[in-house]
Amino acid sequence: MRIAFQGVAGAYSEAAALRFNKTADLLPCPAFEDVFGAVDERLATHGILPIENTIGGTIHRNYDLLLEHDLSIVAEVKLSVVHHLIVNEGTTLEKIKRVYSHPQGLAQCERFLRTLTGAEIVATYDTAGSAKMIKEEGLLDSAAIASERAAQNFGLQILQSRIQDYANNVTRFLIVSKEATPMGTPDKTTIVFTVSNEAGALFKALSVFALRDIDMTKLESRPIPDRPFEYLFYADLSANREDLRCSRALMHLAEFAPSLRTLGSYPSWKDPEQ
Amino acid sequence: MRIAFQGVAGAYSEAAALRFNKTADLLPCPAFEDVFGAVDERLATHGILPIENTIGGTIHRNYDLLLEHDLSIVAEVKLSVVHHLIVNEGTTLEKIKRVYSHPQGLAQCERFLRTLTGAEIVATYDTAGSAKMIKEEGLLDSAAIASERAAQNFGLQILQSRIQDYANNVTRFLIVSKEATPMGTPDKTTIVFTVSNEAGALFKALSVFALRDIDMTKLESRPIPDRPFEYLFYADLSANREDLRCSRALMHLAEFAPSLRTLGSYPSWKDPEQ
Repeated sequence: MRIAFQGVAGAYSEAAALRFNKTADLLPCPAFEDVFGAVDERLATHGILPIENTIGGTIHRNYDLLLEHDLSIVAEVKLSVVHHLIVNEGTTLEKIKRVYSHPQGLAQCERFLRTLTGAEIVATYDTAGSAKMIKEEGLLDSAAIASERAAQNFGLQILQSRIQDYANNVTRFLIVSKEATPMGTPDKTTIVFTVSNEAGALFKALSVFALRDIDMTKLESRPIPDRPFEYLFYADLSANREDLRCSRALMHLAEFAPSLRTLGSYPSWKDPEQ
Repeated sequence: MRIAFQGVAGAYSEAAALRFNKTADLLPCPAFEDVFGAVDERLATHGILPIENTIGGTIHRNYDLLLEHDLSIVAEVKLSVVHHLIVNEGTTLEKIKRVYSHPQGLAQCERFLRTLTGAEIVATYDTAGSAKMIKEEGLLDSAAIASERAAQNFGLQILQSRIQDYANNVTRFLIVSKEATPMGTPDKTTIVFTVSNEAGALFKALSVFALRDIDMTKLESRPIPDRPFEYLFYADLSANREDLRCSRALMHLAEFAPSLRTLGSYPSWKDPEQ
């Protein structure tokens, strides 16, 4: 198993990949697009992608990319995210003029950041990459928000630990593959569909699941490009698509939804430490 | 009327405010929080906030802030967004090493940006602010993505015009105020609610509108901090909350929704140019 992830060593995606499979071979990629590309071109057997965080919300870009590419979701992983303020040796809180991190990392530490009056907040492409940059450029007036592992990897100091606003900060990742073979017995299915532009259309779509007692654990809308104020809906269902109840619900939805695609049926994450 | 907006002169929010009221006094603010703060503290009578874009999707931060503050939505404005690649005189496409803009501006010009091989893409806090920075620092190896008005304001050149991926790029803005007095006859209502954590709960919530033929034009979910994988739902209804049908639907929803708040009832945007 070779898992492509976005970021550099010390990224939360890397930690999630190792949490899923301790012995997997890992392939760092600069952007989410490159993770999809690596799996498309078989440079990796799997890709791992953050899809939602309990504080920052959905990573919509990855929903868009799931639609553009022909990969299947085969598993999910949940990872507790613990952010630290990371600096070069010699940097103190008073010296910090700039704080670098991914926008989600910054959003998750918003209250802490407000206490650093006068420091500029700079959005970057990844958390661990910000730590790497601070090290490489030897910045003494800057800090990064990243993982403990990122600090260790790049020989940096943790100036302030556990700086996120909420202790309960979990990111859910999807594992994607060219093969639609789920990694275990599926009990969860992710679909994407559109509804016709009429009153009650979404209600009617949800009825195919509700009337069959199929729980929907997440519903997310995204705009459809070039069709202003019309939306795609992404839904997570608590069921295996092979179950008769679920397959009938999906057939029912296909009767009237202008478009419907199953992105994958996979086992929901069971924390091995609980 | 004094309208607070996020950004500097030339920002799309400023253009939207002027589209709403040509003679309004305008108050530029550094961040969305400051727009809410200015209205809270009566430094402005109204605030204008981008809430969704037909390409980039919802600006979730503003939904979060609507919940944190006690302001009412009193109107909406839609504005066509046209992005340009803006540079100092003397900069050519080949010289560009960095492109600065707001993440939504960058996302909306993604295909164009991919053609600028080797250029670093830098996320900033606003589009017009990026143009201002390029001017002030006299950067000749950098470009900003912003409006024509931003180029004019800061004496910059448009190197490439209309660079967004989709011609049909519209941003919807909300106008908020301390007074819940709508700016015209309302035919639209925005609510936020939670549902109990059981199968079919969202379906049941939507039924109060569907069974009364009230159209829902948008549904958006956001995580609830410290309640992992539970969500708040924001919905736009095509109805005045004072209409008997709508007020009964809202009372019906309140019977079983753990929480429900009306963020405002307001007239939907009618383009004066159409």
